[in-house]
Amino acid sequence: MDYVNIRYVSKKPKLNNPILIEGLPGIGNVGKLAVEHLIDSIKASKFAELHSKDFPPQVFINQDGTITLVNNEFYFWKAKKRNQRDLILLTGDYQGLSSQGQYELVEKILDLAEEFGVKEMYTLGGYGLGHDIKDPKVLCATTDKNLVKAMKKYGAVFKKNEPGGGIVGASGLLLGLGKLRGIQGTCFMGETPGYLVDPKSAKAVLKILMKITNIEIGLSALEKKAKEIEHIAHQLREMEGITKEKTEELKYIG
Amino acid sequence: MDYVNIRYVSKKPKLNNPILIEGLPGIGNVGKLAVEHLIDSIKASKFAELHSKDFPPQVFINQDGTITLVNNEFYFWKAKKRNQRDLILLTGDYQGLSSQGQYELVEKILDLAEEFGVKEMYTLGGYGLGHDIKDPKVLCATTDKNLVKAMKKYGAVFKKNEPGGGIVGASGLLLGLGKLRGIQGTCFMGETPGYLVDPKSAKAVLKILMKITNIEIGLSALEKKAKEIEHIAHQLREMEGITKEKTEELKYIG
Amino acid sequence: MDYVNIRYVSKKPKLNNPILIEGLPGIGNVGKLAVEHLIDSIKASKFAELHSKDFPPQVFINQDGTITLVNNEFYFWKAKKRNQRDLILLTGDYQGLSSQGQYELVEKILDLAEEFGVKEMYTLGGYGLGHDIKDPKVLCATTDKNLVKAMKKYGAVFKKNEPGGGIVGASGLLLGLGKLRGIQGTCFMGETPGYLVDPKSAKAVLKILMKITNIEIGLSALEKKAKEIEHIAHQLREMEGITKEKTEELKYIG
Amino acid sequence: MDYVNIRYVSKKPKLNNPILIEGLPGIGNVGKLAVEHLIDSIKASKFAELHSKDFPPQVFINQDGTITLVNNEFYFWKAKKRNQRDLILLTGDYQGLSSQGQYELVEKILDLAEEFGVKEMYTLGGYGLGHDIKDPKVLCATTDKNLVKAMKKYGAVFKKNEPGGGIVGASGLLLGLGKLRGIQGTCFMGETPGYLVDPKSAKAVLKILMKITNIEIGLSALEKKAKEIEHIAHQLREMEGITKEKTEELKYIG
Repeated sequence: MDYVNIRYVSKKPKLNNPILIEGLPGIGNVGKLAVEHLIDSIKASKFAELHSKDFPPQVFINQDGTITLVNNEFYFWKAKKRNQRDLILLTGDYQGLSSQGQYELVEKILDLAEEFGVKEMYTLGGYGLGHDIKDPKVLCATTDKNLVKAMKKYGAVFKKNEPGGGIVGASGLLLGLGKLRGIQGTCFMGETPGYLVDPKSAKAVLKILMKITNIEIGLSALEKKAKEIEHIAHQLREMEGITKEKTEELKYIG
Repeated sequence: MDYVNIRYVSKKPKLNNPILIEGLPGIGNVGKLAVEHLIDSIKASKFAELHSKDFPPQVFINQDGTITLVNNEFYFWKAKKRNQRDLILLTGDYQGLSSQGQYELVEKILDLAEEFGVKEMYTLGGYGLGHDIKDPKVLCATTDKNLVKAMKKYGAVFKKNEPGGGIVGASGLLLGLGKLRGIQGTCFMGETPGYLVDPKSAKAVLKILMKITNIEIGLSALEKKAKEIEHIAHQLREMEGITKEKTEELKYIG
Repeated sequence: MDYVNIRYVSKKPKLNNPILIEGLPGIGNVGKLAVEHLIDSIKASKFAELHSKDFPPQVFINQDGTITLVNNEFYFWKAKKRNQRDLILLTGDYQGLSSQGQYELVEKILDLAEEFGVKEMYTLGGYGLGHDIKDPKVLCATTDKNLVKAMKKYGAVFKKNEPGGGIVGASGLLLGLGKLRGIQGTCFMGETPGYLVDPKSAKAVLKILMKITNIEIGLSALEKKAKEIEHIAHQLREMEGITKEKTEELKYIG
Repeated sequence: MDYVNIRYVSKKPKLNNPILIEGLPGIGNVGKLAVEHLIDSIKASKFAELHSKDFPPQVFINQDGTITLVNNEFYFWKAKKRNQRDLILLTGDYQGLSSQGQYELVEKILDLAEEFGVKEMYTLGGYGLGHDIKDPKVLCATTDKNLVKAMKKYGAVFKKNEPGGGIVGASGLLLGLGKLRGIQGTCFMGETPGYLVDPKSAKAVLKILMKITNIEIGLSALEKKAKEIEHIAHQLREMEGITKEKTEELKYIG
């Protein structure tokens, strides 16, 4: 096995000028949630698995008692309508653990993208605010100036110098290394508190993606999950409140 | 020396359709204890050593004043009865320290396994509960659905979504990477508090393995060790109890 | 992409016996500030970018909404007067994160330097004092004994056994590895408190460099920045003062 | 430059069946002190430098203002009497920082040793006790059983299962990896508190080495250093005593 290894699990699909959409784990798991929901909704087909020696040495246990080595997965979807485009979708269990591992991972993903003639990609992630947000906006950054205007039309937001720390991880690196290969890319970052997985933010990201791809998908499953998470967050806040009170009490006493 | 290096210390044994059994250090040292006890009991013969640049830069000191470089060791055992199979047994001082080191280590072990025609393997480990357990069960996970039923018959337990974090380390990775090579594998995880080495849990694992391999071995040495550990655990709990009381006293005062 | 990769963004410049001047991020960002100011002042032209798998997996976001992969950048400048020399200037976002990454980075920089026939280089950095300093001196170290005298004339200071810990990072390594290749090098370290970016220290370093290169540049922009930083430092000290008082109060009470 | 690189700084010496003696930094710097004292006393000649990408990216500053890249250094010494042997002596600024770096370092050292026909080596280090020791003994471990008896005669001590954690670092790894190449090796570990550099322990190690090599060297310089260190240790203990008292006072109050 190479340091990063791609294994086809079905015949190589024939795709016409496909778009790559990436959503790996990250802040609020926004990107992963969005791409997984998209894969489920459009019934995309898995065609390749990626393993890396920079992923944790770990297998997950499936419902039926069998194991699966941690990986990233590639799915494809063929356009159904004239205004749609073929898609390659990427999600997975992990990003690379080390800097080098991240670079190697993204290079391998871009190798596959180039093999399928990808000239356009969208990377999805979260933008951690550290506080609650009612209506998460979707921040945006692109490889090319001429994409900025288009993305604004779709509802994406460009804020000067935000995120101030840039974009760290696969979503940023795909754009950065993709740009060097002449692949156009756009990163959408859904605003999120960042404490918990955030289906609400994933929904906001998907809404924009739906406009770009001309694909209509139901979002009710995400909305349901969002409500569950909101409930958990509420409980946590309450517990925190109690703890806080107690702490203050103790401070007063102590 | 390669990053991971295998060195034969005797002539390559001729084995007939052997089973690989792995037990490296881990939670409660369950796997290592089990395989070492098995090796001693059946008088298996060491035939190869494995060194890795991802092991600590360390030598151990033997009773006679000589040193041994930290390593993993391969043993073999030839079947004595018709219903038995030849065995390759793997134990050692360490697992790889880094993610990459773990992948490289397991790939090398699988290379050797394939060279000897291994098509079936058992990896042994502990499942840390974080609390005491009277009768440790043996959890199980497999590479193939059809193995699940068989393993249940032998007394192994499948719990939905347990271990929730999957299996981390060589025991999991051997299954994960082995599956990609078409080697069937099963991981047995003896329940263990996880604080101390746990011969009781190792015994539970060996009991199942004895049924699978049709090898009868005495377990009294393990039982004796288990009693010693239980004694130590008891002492530690008492000391902890005293410390706890004191702490609470102090809390009350302070 | 190689582990460290250089990409020309313009035609390779033709340079005559150029001097290499390096200023990468470090203590007080002294070196980076100095080289960036020099690049701006003399209007040097960017001709190459360096990426490394040991840099963070990160892109920065430009004012116009586009991204740039974190990198190091090479600029050149052609001598305008007879007593001047052609320059290659190096600055960037990061140094290597790991030891190996630092060595690989510096080796690649030296490869480029040798390609352009560099026989002389200056590396710029800060020397962290841990306390305020009114008139920062510029400490110096060189690859060759015969450079010491010359550098003293330019105003650089040699203190016995200082810095006691030597020079860590690219500024030191360029000299160390460059010396093995027969490239003469000098490191200037501006004294700095080391808490904040330090334009005052950068100015002190540039003053010496101006004498060496016979290049006259305005330093008012750095002076303005230095005043801003001094203002911030003053505010921080005040806040600290309050905190300190409070802490002492609390100590007294508690 | 390779990951680990050896550079000859003089003509390759012609040595007759030389002994390798290693003393790199470690607990109490015992090994390094001993070999450096030996090199100075017998006026051994430096013939090679070793650099590694796993050493810190650092240069040290010499008294004359020039820099030296951190390294390991090889010296040689030609036997003067019939009962003496040629020596290769190894000391340096650092050991490898990572596990892999340690293995690569030691492999390279052994490559050089084999090139010169080394069949016997001594590695020197400290054995940290964590408490003061008046007359440090010298613990010993060897690659071969038949060396144990001989080393006992020279005054080295073999304690069952000590050091319990084996030998970590270059001194152990040279023996471990050397044994695989058929090179006989012995490690001497001078007992040391381990808090400070320990010339007294280095002296104890050298006394044994003098018997083995039939080389007579003066130890007064080490004895002088040992007294200085003892003085510092005394001062530290006093300061600690005061701190301790104060702490106890505070505990009583608080």
